[in-house]
Amino acid sequence: MIDYNELALQKHLELRGKLAVHLKDDLDSQEKLSIYYTPGVGAVSSHLAHHPEDTRKYTWTNNLVAVISDGSAVLGLGNIGPRAALPVMEGKAMLFKHFANIDAIPIVLDVHSADDIVAAVAAIAPSFGGINLEDIAAPICFEVEQRLKQLLPIPVMHDDQHGTAIVVLAGLINAVKLTDRKLSQCKLVLVGTGAAGVAVAKLLLRYAPGINILAVDSQGILSSQRNNLNDSKQALLKLTNSDDTSGSLANGMHGADIFIGVSRANLLDAAMIKTMAKDPIVIALANPVPEVMPEVARAAGVRIIATGRSDYPNQINNALAFPGIFRGALDNGVRMITDAHKIQAAETMAALVQDPTPGCIIPMISNPRLVPAIADIIR
Amino acid sequence: MIDYNELALQKHLELRGKLAVHLKDDLDSQEKLSIYYTPGVGAVSSHLAHHPEDTRKYTWTNNLVAVISDGSAVLGLGNIGPRAALPVMEGKAMLFKHFANIDAIPIVLDVHSADDIVAAVAAIAPSFGGINLEDIAAPICFEVEQRLKQLLPIPVMHDDQHGTAIVVLAGLINAVKLTDRKLSQCKLVLVGTGAAGVAVAKLLLRYAPGINILAVDSQGILSSQRNNLNDSKQALLKLTNSDDTSGSLANGMHGADIFIGVSRANLLDAAMIKTMAKDPIVIALANPVPEVMPEVARAAGVRIIATGRSDYPNQINNALAFPGIFRGALDNGVRMITDAHKIQAAETMAALVQDPTPGCIIPMISNPRLVPAIADIIR
Repeated sequence: MIDYNELALQKHLELRGKLAVHLKDDLDSQEKLSIYYTPGVGAVSSHLAHHPEDTRKYTWTNNLVAVISDGSAVLGLGNIGPRAALPVMEGKAMLFKHFANIDAIPIVLDVHSADDIVAAVAAIAPSFGGINLEDIAAPICFEVEQRLKQLLPIPVMHDDQHGTAIVVLAGLINAVKLTDRKLSQCKLVLVGTGAAGVAVAKLLLRYAPGINILAVDSQGILSSQRNNLNDSKQALLKLTNSDDTSGSLANGMHGADIFIGVSRANLLDAAMIKTMAKDPIVIALANPVPEVMPEVARAAGVRIIATGRSDYPNQINNALAFPGIFRGALDNGVRMITDAHKIQAAETMAALVQDPTPGCIIPMISNPRLVPAIADIIR
Repeated sequence: MIDYNELALQKHLELRGKLAVHLKDDLDSQEKLSIYYTPGVGAVSSHLAHHPEDTRKYTWTNNLVAVISDGSAVLGLGNIGPRAALPVMEGKAMLFKHFANIDAIPIVLDVHSADDIVAAVAAIAPSFGGINLEDIAAPICFEVEQRLKQLLPIPVMHDDQHGTAIVVLAGLINAVKLTDRKLSQCKLVLVGTGAAGVAVAKLLLRYAPGINILAVDSQGILSSQRNNLNDSKQALLKLTNSDDTSGSLANGMHGADIFIGVSRANLLDAAMIKTMAKDPIVIALANPVPEVMPEVARAAGVRIIATGRSDYPNQINNALAFPGIFRGALDNGVRMITDAHKIQAAETMAALVQDPTPGCIIPMISNPRLVPAIADIIR
């Protein structure tokens, strides 16, 4: 197996950063200097001073997204701070460019309270056409995104929440079809109550009201028995666990139709899987080692298993969603990504798989129809 | 004469912004995704979490400057706000790339108090290797720059102040040589007490203590007679006008060796010039129309005249200074641009003109030795 760690350190050192600025036209004459800088640019600025609504037409904001993180919840590494988060944000900017031809700039923040993050992002917002929040820890991420969405006239999306939720929903749409279920009648165990978990629960409840979700954190099932729930977990409890089940993950798994993990490696074992309903669906997204390895799940009788990994079938990857979402928002002048957008994006993504099979419930990330199809419904 | 206004509007609309993001390597394989994004990038972030001092080696910050403005003093247009300022900042980013191969990102701010600007810039600072402040109105620009220089571990320079001051000093070094003067014994009239005026005065006083500067604003000479001076003008008065002269610009011009204008068009006339000392030096930087047109100054007997224009000799252009300054600061890991750096930069720039003549006191902006020579002394 390739040692990506060593390779990554080598290549990053060699490239000295993965991004550069490109000029759309060369500054190779005095005339161009006079057009793109003074005195000519004064006419453009003067026009925009009177017609701010034209800013997108005359500046690069029409194709520009900021990838913003405070480095408080980076990959599996946790709170490593803004500088250490920068390589991840540069990588995310590469994905934006590669998949959707969107110019994206990594912005890492040296502030960490909701107030300070909101103030900093609002201050720089006129520089950009959209804001992708990334790797900001729960529960602060919820407040930050909510306030920025209300405050700013450009689309704001916390990708760890909604990118994940959209792709999970897309996968589930095909998985329940294959197993002849109705999502609204399923029992679903969701392990992980951070940014992704909360967003997955909310989007599933919006798409399939009636679905019975048990949310589980490291202490067990969120229930009225628990006296150690923070505000965002209490809010999640209100939406879930209508039977007020309590206890461990193993308790929750009895009779579950669907398992979704956005938590940590190897917490689901074959014994628990065998207590699930017949023909269960397992979506295990911990990275790089999922909550259960596909081989283990398959041996325990699971037909449909999805992970975040590219070396197994059914890769649930945010990069299936965010490029198209932002491409559409930028091109169509959409100021707010709504739940309706997210559901349509998931349905569009699911429909791109023409004949779903247990090994193919989600499109490949390389599917050329993916970005335009999703962009088209963001209106 | 070419109508640059119309051309600029056309070209900006056609290009839809002048900048784009370029990927230093293509993301054209699953392997590269795994190196530049997950899982490989995790090793880089993990390394930086333990060795933050290596951030420059592994991220694009080693070649990255933010061009930051709140849009409060843009060109001759004044306080047009962040959105309308964006085309100018994109243009400035083009200059960074073209002249010094520095990646520069325009960041326009929707906040305008010193506290809020400092907070926003400090919050995003880990994203960059240097900060170029641009077109922020006096007197706030002084406090903002001073506080950020103290606060941040990366170079911060307000180019309207120091870029201008460096190039003016470079021109004067050659001009006083040509007219057989000592700068420290000159009488100098400086019209304009905003960002550029204050910085020019301070740098000249640092380089040539004893120089007699009269600072003049729209109300006349700054003197103890004036009761309408804000804090920054009072501070400037303390450094200037040792004879406590008062009155109008015309009063001040009597016997002056040097005129420097960083103010507005056509405020200097032939009659005033004729009252200057023999063989005077005129540096008239108002843009696009200088304080006195070169033809008028020449007819009044001036041999050495410099303006900000490219269509006359002796173009005093910030782009002679800031590319080399930031190139050197980034390459040599310099955290603070000092007065000593600015003086050395001016001396280096002046020395690049091998045989100064009245029509050539400053290098051409296209001089290929300019950026490396200046970068080399920023250590």
